[in-house]
Amino acid sequence: MKIRPKISRREFVGSTLSAAAMQSLYVQPFLRTKVEGSPSDPGWKDEGILFVDRSPHAKLRNVPVHAVTITEGFWGARRETNLKKSIPSMEKLLEANGRMNNYLRLRGKSDSQQSGPVYSDSDVYKWTEAVGFQLQSGDPPELRALAEKIIRGIVAVQEPNGYLNTYYVADRAKQRMTPETQRWGHELYNIGHMIQGAIAYYRATGDRTLLDAGIRFVDDYLLASFGPGTDKQPLFSGHPEIELALVELYRTTGDQRHLELAGYILQGDDRIKVPRHAYVYHFCGIPFTSRTHLEGHAVRAMYACCGATDYYMETGDQKYWKTLDVLWNDLVSSQMYVTGGVGARSDGEAFGDSYELPNFTAYGESCAAIGNMMWNWRMLAATGDAKYADVIERALYNGINSGMSLDGTLYCYRNPLSFDPAGGDQIRNPWYDTTCCPPNLERIFASLPGYLYSTSKDGLYLHLYENSQLDWHLEDGTGLKVEQKTSYPWDGAVEIGVTPAKSTEFTFYLRIPEWCNSAQVAVNGKSVSGVTPGQYLALRRRWSPRDAIHLKFGMTPQVIEANRRVVDDYGRVAVQRGPLVYCLEQLDQPQGISLYDVSLDLREDSSSAFHVEFDKDLLGGIVVLRHAGAWAEKTSSDGKLYRKYTPTAAKGRQVELKFIPYYAWANRAATPMQVWTPTFRA
Amino acid sequence: MKIRPKISRREFVGSTLSAAAMQSLYVQPFLRTKVEGSPSDPGWKDEGILFVDRSPHAKLRNVPVHAVTITEGFWGARRETNLKKSIPSMEKLLEANGRMNNYLRLRGKSDSQQSGPVYSDSDVYKWTEAVGFQLQSGDPPELRALAEKIIRGIVAVQEPNGYLNTYYVADRAKQRMTPETQRWGHELYNIGHMIQGAIAYYRATGDRTLLDAGIRFVDDYLLASFGPGTDKQPLFSGHPEIELALVELYRTTGDQRHLELAGYILQGDDRIKVPRHAYVYHFCGIPFTSRTHLEGHAVRAMYACCGATDYYMETGDQKYWKTLDVLWNDLVSSQMYVTGGVGARSDGEAFGDSYELPNFTAYGESCAAIGNMMWNWRMLAATGDAKYADVIERALYNGINSGMSLDGTLYCYRNPLSFDPAGGDQIRNPWYDTTCCPPNLERIFASLPGYLYSTSKDGLYLHLYENSQLDWHLEDGTGLKVEQKTSYPWDGAVEIGVTPAKSTEFTFYLRIPEWCNSAQVAVNGKSVSGVTPGQYLALRRRWSPRDAIHLKFGMTPQVIEANRRVVDDYGRVAVQRGPLVYCLEQLDQPQGISLYDVSLDLREDSSSAFHVEFDKDLLGGIVVLRHAGAWAEKTSSDGKLYRKYTPTAAKGRQVELKFIPYYAWANRAATPMQVWTPTFRA
Repeated sequence: MKIRPKISRREFVGSTLSAAAMQSLYVQPFLRTKVEGSPSDPGWKDEGILFVDRSPHAKLRNVPVHAVTITEGFWGARRETNLKKSIPSMEKLLEANGRMNNYLRLRGKSDSQQSGPVYSDSDVYKWTEAVGFQLQSGDPPELRALAEKIIRGIVAVQEPNGYLNTYYVADRAKQRMTPETQRWGHELYNIGHMIQGAIAYYRATGDRTLLDAGIRFVDDYLLASFGPGTDKQPLFSGHPEIELALVELYRTTGDQRHLELAGYILQGDDRIKVPRHAYVYHFCGIPFTSRTHLEGHAVRAMYACCGATDYYMETGDQKYWKTLDVLWNDLVSSQMYVTGGVGARSDGEAFGDSYELPNFTAYGESCAAIGNMMWNWRMLAATGDAKYADVIERALYNGINSGMSLDGTLYCYRNPLSFDPAGGDQIRNPWYDTTCCPPNLERIFASLPGYLYSTSKDGLYLHLYENSQLDWHLEDGTGLKVEQKTSYPWDGAVEIGVTPAKSTEFTFYLRIPEWCNSAQVAVNGKSVSGVTPGQYLALRRRWSPRDAIHLKFGMTPQVIEANRRVVDDYGRVAVQRGPLVYCLEQLDQPQGISLYDVSLDLREDSSSAFHVEFDKDLLGGIVVLRHAGAWAEKTSSDGKLYRKYTPTAAKGRQVELKFIPYYAWANRAATPMQVWTPTFRA
Repeated sequence: MKIRPKISRREFVGSTLSAAAMQSLYVQPFLRTKVEGSPSDPGWKDEGILFVDRSPHAKLRNVPVHAVTITEGFWGARRETNLKKSIPSMEKLLEANGRMNNYLRLRGKSDSQQSGPVYSDSDVYKWTEAVGFQLQSGDPPELRALAEKIIRGIVAVQEPNGYLNTYYVADRAKQRMTPETQRWGHELYNIGHMIQGAIAYYRATGDRTLLDAGIRFVDDYLLASFGPGTDKQPLFSGHPEIELALVELYRTTGDQRHLELAGYILQGDDRIKVPRHAYVYHFCGIPFTSRTHLEGHAVRAMYACCGATDYYMETGDQKYWKTLDVLWNDLVSSQMYVTGGVGARSDGEAFGDSYELPNFTAYGESCAAIGNMMWNWRMLAATGDAKYADVIERALYNGINSGMSLDGTLYCYRNPLSFDPAGGDQIRNPWYDTTCCPPNLERIFASLPGYLYSTSKDGLYLHLYENSQLDWHLEDGTGLKVEQKTSYPWDGAVEIGVTPAKSTEFTFYLRIPEWCNSAQVAVNGKSVSGVTPGQYLALRRRWSPRDAIHLKFGMTPQVIEANRRVVDDYGRVAVQRGPLVYCLEQLDQPQGISLYDVSLDLREDSSSAFHVEFDKDLLGGIVVLRHAGAWAEKTSSDGKLYRKYTPTAAKGRQVELKFIPYYAWANRAATPMQVWTPTFRA
């Protein structure tokens, strides 16, 4: 087992050090050698997305990003684009839009005015986090040099008392941490992202510069003046994020105060009287454990749930678990789009009522789907329950993946499930003044290798199928390599090579996705029974080098209907194949046909089969689905809003409908799109 | 023809008179004799809801409210409740909530603070208008005495310069008519309602007190300092209403400046740079004739359209007509609920995008449906085209009528088409702090007799069927009585007795509703051909006393489907019988059944007929409809948000569904309701 001392702040940060002096503390040279998973390696290198190795109530440990190599597969291509296009172009846009100047001007190195909204610093930090994860996977020196320069610029403007923010300066300094600013000013949100970015960068490089700045903010500024004591001012996080960052900081520093501060914020301080509309929208300010359903701003709610799950993993507080379980059931039973997106309403970027899941006006912010994935990743770490991995897969392949264009330079803020460009919306854009989503997508794709596996006391969990190599070890220290060969998600066959450093008995937990109708598993050619969709198949045996597992998931396209309470989906179905939700884009259908007028022909006597075909030239290579449909010729455009019902009106002419994966929509000419397609009414 | 001098302001208002002195000008004693329609009667008595007798571009003239007596029918009962319960109880609530004190305190007769939002005065004025219309129909002396006292209290606080408002006084006086206050302060909106109320009261009683105050505001305050001149300040109406009031004032005073001011406001003043979001929301500030679709705040848009139609009827400006036609087509082809309600979004109380007509979250404010009816009444006056009367009937019987409880004391602000009390909404309330809807409903029901008929150069138009007596005259002065005997809308038979003072050739235009499948018309027992739904049937002949028309509209319940672009209605149907849209309330269905799980069985091989039955004991006496349905047993409550589509899942168990008219919903215990019911999928 890997044993190493926790970082103690006292060891390397003198609270009176200047920012410049602090930089000189950066003594760890950048080492990007091939990591063998050896316990003798510096500890920071082997911490995963979450460092829960010592968390008493985490069942699973994260595997570090560097331990998994993703190549030549579905996510390999996406990650390549992320590294080559998205991260560099976003840095240029952050520059061009003054976000970097916000730091420079505080050192007199830029004449420009403060740029962007109060949360603009966070976008720089999320970009830094993306770079951090990317550096964990490899070594693009120019990216590191760029990030290092930016980090030096950030920490240089930290004030002697630890405060760091480029908005609440000069005339605005007097607004710092006032009740109004705590509510809307995103000071703690910014620092939360800074800490996350700092940790990712630290785990990549050992460079503590940004991390130290985060610790100084927390220790010297926050803990000194804010908190539960009568001599201290109360805290309201405003936009949850600091909570999860503080727990991860605690995992990194071992400083109990960081965990306690997270717990205090999650509890809310009853010295602040928070009106209902505020604790609903902000999803903080009352005890997290008093929550009974998801509501309010979706990203805030998801980040709060992340923080609360992190807190649970450290404390085992059952009140937290009970609440998390209630909220999670609310999510999957009444609040989540079939794409894994969350947040139905544009108004307040908020959760709607139960079953309020409009398609056309769906908000489904990219950040909220990411928050959903992050939360479920934590729930999975706590329990090892496959139902959380199912949500991760659904969100990742669909509602998150849709957020970035295939070329990696355009982003969705909203991810609607139905769209008509006639409404005037430009759905993908290179930049938003509130540009939270683009760097958030970048950090997720950068961190993706860390989501494929976990370890447990008794073995290894495989969560996501992807062409990849794992080079890590079991929790007892036994080296273990696992290779996946697959064309997943286009094909349901996965060949898994298992190579422990020596023959060892352990359990290989293979996730059997809940969506699959049929799954065949064979170990060394011998079929395995007890395969159950929606569960991990526990293969307990003595594993030896060159053992092989063959998986075969049935990939027959599936037709899905929603609960009848989802009014927008009634009479409609969604099509899913493997983990991918499909959609119709009008430009793929025969000319002259409007999506408003088509139905999927699901009559039993019709040819109900999908035609499945991989088209390597379309949208980067996708499996296209074709199915018989009906075209109710121009009934939507005859100007009639209401008409007498005629049972045959919808039948119309026969037409073949062509479906593409939802994530790939809006990558060609602007055209109507829909996920939920009417079914044929006989 | 009725010929009388227009009121000239100069004749009876001295601009330097005090409010008290103005009251002494009230010299016309209240006369409530039986009006025979004689041209020698005081002109004010014979003006209809709109006085368009001299409007060059009005095809139809209004018939005064007093000329039509509604008794013992559908609307007779509603109007009785309005008079006995609604108007008196609303007056008490206006008192109890300080709206009357707002006037008293300005005279030192109340110590209370200003109460209510900036538009609170308008609620008093709308109540006054309701009383005015009610007084036009009869003579409840105690109601007149009460109104007179209130009116005296209002005019007593008018300032010497004509300004009148109970909110922008004292410290707030400096905010009067600032750009910000023009946008949000409702000063002109309040005065618009005051003028409407004043005119209704004047037409009932000849009492010019309130009317004079309105004229003073316009002449002495507005025209003196605001308008297009370089020496004047620009105007922005903020909440359209003043436009229609000014045109009606012009019709009453003959003062061309009142019409010109309306035109100026409808045009917008380009000295005010109105940002897009503002001219969308406020529906003013840019030339009305530049509008291409309905958008923004629905009541604002509807009142603006009313004012623009009024302006068109006076000017004949074809640019106005073109715009009105475009907007009207937008309304009926993509923006109107099947109930005649308008305004899809709670957010901004606004029109949605085309076809955005959600049922559960429908706003459908009572005031907006009223605005819709008022607008269509003007379009009908301009053209005599039955399509406008069809919209009036749809809105009146459904989306407006639903706004008041059957007992006349509770009101809907929102009129959703689907409801679940589990959401916590209290849909009917006696009072709203923004209490625009209750007195608006009261004034409409009070004015209803004025909507049944119009005259044209060549005869008489019958718009609405209702047990009633008309006692009026043709435009050539020939006396004419028309009696309708009917149980409409419960029954499709209408017996019409036509009694001209002498045998006269004229055209009797009978509206054949667009909803009817079949209509038989006979004059003196002889069947008439050429009956076309959605048109007026023109019966040109020499009419003599004791002539009789027999109408028989087919009342078979109809199943309606929406345009496929209305996502919320897809796979669902609405049920309509006659002009009444029906709904399901859960408490009428077999116990244990959730509305979420029922479907209407419309298979051709099923018994597709409705069972139609009048239940005199239910909800004041209604026709109940029963139809075979299916119950997909508890599929909505099994906790599953998405499931694999199975074509038989929705079939379920057979069940009988019971429909009641939509207007009568929410008059018993709180229970789920829906207008659009899923159809059975075979």
